[in-house]
Amino acid sequence: MSPRSRHRPRARPTSIRRSPRVDAGATDRRRVVVERVGPEVDGGRFPIKRTVGESVRVAAWIHADGHDPLTAVVRYRPVPDRGARGDWLERPMEPRGNDEWDAAFDIDRLCPYEYTVDAWVDRFESWRHELAAKVDARQDVSSELLEGALLIRAIARRARGRRARDVARWLDGQAAQVGRSGDQAGRARMALDNRLAALARQFPDRREASTYVRVLRVSVDRERARFGSWYEMFPRSWGPDPTRSATLREAETHLHRIAAMGFDVTYLAPIHPIGTTFRKGRGNALAAEPGEPGSPWAIGSTAGGHKAVDPGLGTLDDFDHFVGEAGRLGLEVALDLAYQCSPDHPYVREHPEWFRHRPDGTIKYAENPPKKYQDIYPFDFECDAWPALWEELKSVVEFWIARGVTIFRVDNPHTKPYRFWEWLIREIRSRHPDVIFLAEAFTRPKVMYYLAKLGFTQSYTYFTWRNTKDELTAYFTEINHPEVAEFFRPNLFANTPDILHAYLQRGGPPAFQIRLILAATLGASYGIYSGFELCENRAVAGTEEYADSEKYQYRPW
Amino acid sequence: MSPRSRHRPRARPTSIRRSPRVDAGATDRRRVVVERVGPEVDGGRFPIKRTVGESVRVAAWIHADGHDPLTAVVRYRPVPDRGARGDWLERPMEPRGNDEWDAAFDIDRLCPYEYTVDAWVDRFESWRHELAAKVDARQDVSSELLEGALLIRAIARRARGRRARDVARWLDGQAAQVGRSGDQAGRARMALDNRLAALARQFPDRREASTYVRVLRVSVDRERARFGSWYEMFPRSWGPDPTRSATLREAETHLHRIAAMGFDVTYLAPIHPIGTTFRKGRGNALAAEPGEPGSPWAIGSTAGGHKAVDPGLGTLDDFDHFVGEAGRLGLEVALDLAYQCSPDHPYVREHPEWFRHRPDGTIKYAENPPKKYQDIYPFDFECDAWPALWEELKSVVEFWIARGVTIFRVDNPHTKPYRFWEWLIREIRSRHPDVIFLAEAFTRPKVMYYLAKLGFTQSYTYFTWRNTKDELTAYFTEINHPEVAEFFRPNLFANTPDILHAYLQRGGPPAFQIRLILAATLGASYGIYSGFELCENRAVAGTEEYADSEKYQYRPW
Repeated sequence: MSPRSRHRPRARPTSIRRSPRVDAGATDRRRVVVERVGPEVDGGRFPIKRTVGESVRVAAWIHADGHDPLTAVVRYRPVPDRGARGDWLERPMEPRGNDEWDAAFDIDRLCPYEYTVDAWVDRFESWRHELAAKVDARQDVSSELLEGALLIRAIARRARGRRARDVARWLDGQAAQVGRSGDQAGRARMALDNRLAALARQFPDRREASTYVRVLRVSVDRERARFGSWYEMFPRSWGPDPTRSATLREAETHLHRIAAMGFDVTYLAPIHPIGTTFRKGRGNALAAEPGEPGSPWAIGSTAGGHKAVDPGLGTLDDFDHFVGEAGRLGLEVALDLAYQCSPDHPYVREHPEWFRHRPDGTIKYAENPPKKYQDIYPFDFECDAWPALWEELKSVVEFWIARGVTIFRVDNPHTKPYRFWEWLIREIRSRHPDVIFLAEAFTRPKVMYYLAKLGFTQSYTYFTWRNTKDELTAYFTEINHPEVAEFFRPNLFANTPDILHAYLQRGGPPAFQIRLILAATLGASYGIYSGFELCENRAVAGTEEYADSEKYQYRPW
Repeated sequence: MSPRSRHRPRARPTSIRRSPRVDAGATDRRRVVVERVGPEVDGGRFPIKRTVGESVRVAAWIHADGHDPLTAVVRYRPVPDRGARGDWLERPMEPRGNDEWDAAFDIDRLCPYEYTVDAWVDRFESWRHELAAKVDARQDVSSELLEGALLIRAIARRARGRRARDVARWLDGQAAQVGRSGDQAGRARMALDNRLAALARQFPDRREASTYVRVLRVSVDRERARFGSWYEMFPRSWGPDPTRSATLREAETHLHRIAAMGFDVTYLAPIHPIGTTFRKGRGNALAAEPGEPGSPWAIGSTAGGHKAVDPGLGTLDDFDHFVGEAGRLGLEVALDLAYQCSPDHPYVREHPEWFRHRPDGTIKYAENPPKKYQDIYPFDFECDAWPALWEELKSVVEFWIARGVTIFRVDNPHTKPYRFWEWLIREIRSRHPDVIFLAEAFTRPKVMYYLAKLGFTQSYTYFTWRNTKDELTAYFTEINHPEVAEFFRPNLFANTPDILHAYLQRGGPPAFQIRLILAATLGASYGIYSGFELCENRAVAGTEEYADSEKYQYRPW
């Protein structure tokens, strides 16, 4: 489906008063109110997140006028695809006091789920309470028994409607007995019988059931989405000769060391051809010396773009081999999804309309005034040709999925429009529900949370900058609060290629050990970047940048 | 409008995913997200409450990808009636840090208001920041100035569109200067000029503005809705002869004493004809002695029903006179709206279909098994003839409004369906926005809150049972929490005719003084029931009921 067709122009919002959907409480005979259903993210605008094997505990406030007993159920179902919803399943809810009810259901399929809550007045139980109270008070109950006979016949009808013919027959017999004359005590005992009460619960009258105003959604992932340890690898640093970049084939021979450290995922910095125009040099030098490889985030050259492998690293076949070898060792390979181009990227020539232009017609490079990043052309996600651009960017993901990659670490998602990510992740996951997107956004808290709500499976965090007990307590209290934890899954990195925190710079190996243990125990997903295990801690004075490392890079934004 | 026509059958809820309205974030070029707009009650399902002269401070989380400056406004407007919405008014919002913005608007008309939030990327300001940074760094800005000229021309176009022709002419002149060649420094100064920035703010480009997904509502009342002191009067107790019921004319002569105590509202227990069948006697005796007046809540006799005055109290003319005299003294008269009937109510004969029937055809009286209240027939709000019943009950309110009553104390609203109250209050207040409904519900917290959300102007509270410092602190913290205070307005009664708390029973006059002071200072609305000022504190042992008082009554539910 093209992005254009998914994004219809939006009508101006209308007053919610005129929406029949929200008038739910005012319909005919439905007396029960179902409110505050949770978990719910932003009024149902976004799904909650779960992995297969987890459960969802649904709570609600449920009440009605008067004092009739109520019954409530959670309804839920897997939605394997949009056109083929399964039947609703149900779990009875329990009242926990103060009109608060809950029930849990299990997630056992890798597909979205949806859920809501139904509740209704239990007229049989209401009648039964009344009868019991009157019997206890030795009052005449002849009228109540006549009413009861009618109620029992109604249960029989519902049982028959669900093909429980034997049960229906038995119920009709009970109704006849309860409704006859004479022997009030015996008839009352029969009416208060537990089997009858159980059948009333089994075949309830739900014609006047109230349903919560929204159907809520669960985004379901495989377990790796919430649990796993990551190791970042710069393949070109893992070769036999420190004077030149290593190849994928050479790096591959070291994968067993990463596997032996117990990691689940090895994430590769971009492996695509690197541009030569304005290529940056060692230590972020403005111009590269001959032979310097440049930043792998300056993607694209005559050798290809986001769907190619840098010739210095090898070929697509080499990449396939790398992925296969990793898999043999129990490692998944994650790729970096960095949506930006070097001036030499084929897109620049073939689709100049996907970039921003200056009045003189030249393409705008990245800037953070007064800083200039002339080796990077950002995409213009808002250009007139955005549907084609978006489709092409989606095809990049599909290209690597076809080569066995299902984890993507997304570079700087907060500098691309929200709506792009929502669309992209939805499109990809509707066909490939096992795909995981990690948001590499170190930005303002609400932006990081919003990206998680839009669909990112996991998120980088502020963990790197939370070192004292107070900082850690405050931060992990915040991100473990249910309001956040339902959509935000932290992936705790102890360092990154461009963040070497002062605590690590000054604390030596013990600091590295402490931070690794904290990362591995404060969350279920954590990771380190290549070199962490060597306790590399030499920084550029007064910064968090590494002083001497192949891992140098720069971030335009 | 008939209740039927307002209550269309409701469709099953659909997945929110398929609603274009909630896809707002995914539309074309709208990059800004407006979320968590507040105050908002239950996702906009219910309005917030204000009185004329108050203001609404609207807060929101507003952010976008990247780092462009944003602009945001609160849009709001009075909605004098549904067909005639006024123009939107606006207030600029201020960023308060951490992507949180706010602004306030004033309520100055007695009609509903609605509000929402718009926000957009401020492209001129973004460009201006970039230019300033580059000028500071002494970079070449020739390209930036050419872009600026285009932006300034666009401002001119928008100014012209709003008939600011002189401004547009000036802007076109600036654009020409900024866009010409040579003298970069001078052109940059001109481009960074404050007047230009101010005009850019005045004529913003809002084509890509994002609007919050909902329009929220304010229910607006007159000041008495949140501020006033109430005194409950049993007119028949205010006569010259303690051996017989007083008349309205006699009671009226005492109004000046209530006014002199400083009260704003005098609320009358039901003044309608009282049934004789199963009439209850003094001290809740099952049968009245001859001459005993019965409970005023057992409404209806051959003398009439909810639109009549009990002959013992006088005539409708007497009532009008009473209201007039109260008004002269600065007192408003509030009536009791008790929707239930004695067996002698004309409705019972004329509309038996409005009541519940037993299998033998008799009408069901009120019960709380094993207790029976044979002098009360509750309405069956769910009967097949509910539209006619509801219309009739509405006409009761309209009848008394036509006689100058605009405050109603609603008896036991929690025993009638929620949807009835929502409909009734909406219908009445759409024509009579000055009408106030006080919910006399002493029931579970969520039910009390829900009635307030549905439209009740004020609510009785648990104040009567909150006597220790801890109890008072916890309770008033709860009801003053913004989440509650936006819709729940407490009216603190120090006692009621059937609640004489142990604290008052045992504490003597100091307890009465303390409770009155607490009521008057913990909330802006408070009240007492007749006799409180006399410190009547004799109770039936072990209960909260008065031992010896004309105020005896009973509550079936």
